[in-house]
Amino acid sequence: MGMRAVVLREGRLVVDRIPDPVPSEGQVLVRSVACGICGSDLHAARHLASLAEAAREADFPVPLDPARDVVLGHEFCAEVLDFGPGCSRKLRPGTRVCSMPALLTEGAPHSLGYSNDHAGGFAERMLLSEALLLPVPAEVPVHVAALTEPLAVGVHAVTKARPGKEDAPLVVGCGPVGLMMVAALRLAGARPIVASDFSPARRAQALRMGADTVVDPQEGRVIEAWGRHVPPGRRALIFECVGVPGMLAHLVREAPAGSRIVVAGVCMQEDRFKPAVAVLKEIELQFVFGYSPEEFAHALLALARGRVSVEGVVTGCVGLNGVAEAFETLSGPNEHVKVLVEPSP
Amino acid sequence: MGMRAVVLREGRLVVDRIPDPVPSEGQVLVRSVACGICGSDLHAARHLASLAEAAREADFPVPLDPARDVVLGHEFCAEVLDFGPGCSRKLRPGTRVCSMPALLTEGAPHSLGYSNDHAGGFAERMLLSEALLLPVPAEVPVHVAALTEPLAVGVHAVTKARPGKEDAPLVVGCGPVGLMMVAALRLAGARPIVASDFSPARRAQALRMGADTVVDPQEGRVIEAWGRHVPPGRRALIFECVGVPGMLAHLVREAPAGSRIVVAGVCMQEDRFKPAVAVLKEIELQFVFGYSPEEFAHALLALARGRVSVEGVVTGCVGLNGVAEAFETLSGPNEHVKVLVEPSP
Repeated sequence: MGMRAVVLREGRLVVDRIPDPVPSEGQVLVRSVACGICGSDLHAARHLASLAEAAREADFPVPLDPARDVVLGHEFCAEVLDFGPGCSRKLRPGTRVCSMPALLTEGAPHSLGYSNDHAGGFAERMLLSEALLLPVPAEVPVHVAALTEPLAVGVHAVTKARPGKEDAPLVVGCGPVGLMMVAALRLAGARPIVASDFSPARRAQALRMGADTVVDPQEGRVIEAWGRHVPPGRRALIFECVGVPGMLAHLVREAPAGSRIVVAGVCMQEDRFKPAVAVLKEIELQFVFGYSPEEFAHALLALARGRVSVEGVVTGCVGLNGVAEAFETLSGPNEHVKVLVEPSP
Repeated sequence: MGMRAVVLREGRLVVDRIPDPVPSEGQVLVRSVACGICGSDLHAARHLASLAEAAREADFPVPLDPARDVVLGHEFCAEVLDFGPGCSRKLRPGTRVCSMPALLTEGAPHSLGYSNDHAGGFAERMLLSEALLLPVPAEVPVHVAALTEPLAVGVHAVTKARPGKEDAPLVVGCGPVGLMMVAALRLAGARPIVASDFSPARRAQALRMGADTVVDPQEGRVIEAWGRHVPPGRRALIFECVGVPGMLAHLVREAPAGSRIVVAGVCMQEDRFKPAVAVLKEIELQFVFGYSPEEFAHALLALARGRVSVEGVVTGCVGLNGVAEAFETLSGPNEHVKVLVEPSP
């Protein structure tokens, strides 16, 4: 009985059987069809305690206990199976849906994928809130719909940055976050888009997704290359999509005076920089996280209408038994963009 | 011959005679009537090398050589003495003037007060650029006009922050920078204004200058006190006016999600914070520095029209011989707001 899930337990990812979830008031039981592995999942698997501490310091409504089991997975496309009490049941069983990874309960919204109480998408089944369900048009492949959440991250960051005519974007780091930033900038019409990454494969993917120019940081200062490729007088609007210690200090040092830096890379460790240099240059650091329901819906719509070039984004698929190994692979040097987990292939 | 000046030489402030400045094309010889001691002067006197390094990292046009002499002083009110060639001579000798602390030369603008080549206001005489002179109306006391530069810093920070109806400001630290922030917020009509400082005298001064509520950080969390004093639903617009290591980390930890932090305090040392917490809360850090010519003129006009309560701001006056001791006093615990230097009393 029960269902199969990848459980993060004492720092290890183990496939185990856990109780089948039962939908409460307003909740829907769904089958997790495909669920992307995110950079923060990799971090959570190794440093759950520091993630929990950051969430606690940021006053998140439901605390995460790193000593208890967690089923990760928040970038999912799912299929409706059954409804709890009080649902309107507008969507038929079998409908494919996306949802923001939040489960509304009487107490507070639980973050699906980072909850001790509710399984995320790396399980055969999970609970979603009916109020948050977005039906996926039948013609949209599951692998495309599963990109809704990461694209929503990009859409939100770009919306928050409000690029104007005076700005010229530079996306630093073309991992999944950076690539979705490129896609979201293209959706917003903010051009030219310059993107940088050490990996030739990722640079090629950035071009496929809408970058006008890509830069290899090994070939010189990225900001100088940016300056050569944008019209004169533009202000740098830098999207930090790397999230390792030292990146902010590096960008503050490199950025032209008056630059805006949108920080989308999540650096979990304590980081250092020189505030005086940021002051003298009047840098703006806008940290971004998550998305609104509208931005999430906008992301799904853009994918459904084919407005995002997703060719080449999904570079791998694994079942539950392959998750631990995929985490190993993705934690080292690799050329993957997005690996999806299919819990019940 | 020559003139008397306080010279910062090998980390010490010494009164010495230096050559009288001679105005070049477009330059004006002025008498420094009163010149405020700024927090960054105190820092420069102790750590000129780190200031020079920060300026270099921020790509300032004219480098500062910490091994050479510097005459500090950039918050001055002066009196026109003589004109160099090519001046329009619209202002008569004897006219009192303020000016942004920049000397335009053929090469690049020199930062007056942080230049190896041109004396700042802690000298009997100095050079200014005719194009930047603002005449001070006769009825405005010198001690008020000398506050133009620090008020311009506040005006610029508030202009850059663009407080909206959804914002409620909190000024952290009521030293001279924080107090001018309070005055500038009041000028901009951004209310209610909450301000915090450990010193009862500085809190009283903040109230005199326009704060609606003042908070003693020893009596509990400042952000909670702020929350009790502002209408519900307002977003925190925090002005960081302390500039010591750890303040940014503290504010990122304390600030409600979605807060904007305007960083006006200049922390010269390397600082640490947790980017992940700033990301999860979507904090915006806007570092601010300096002002535009328009903001500088706006500051003088506001002072001239009596729109800023400056009563109690100037807490001391010294001649050149008293500067070194004043720096000592101001570097320790003290209740001063602004000490002015009068080079030729």
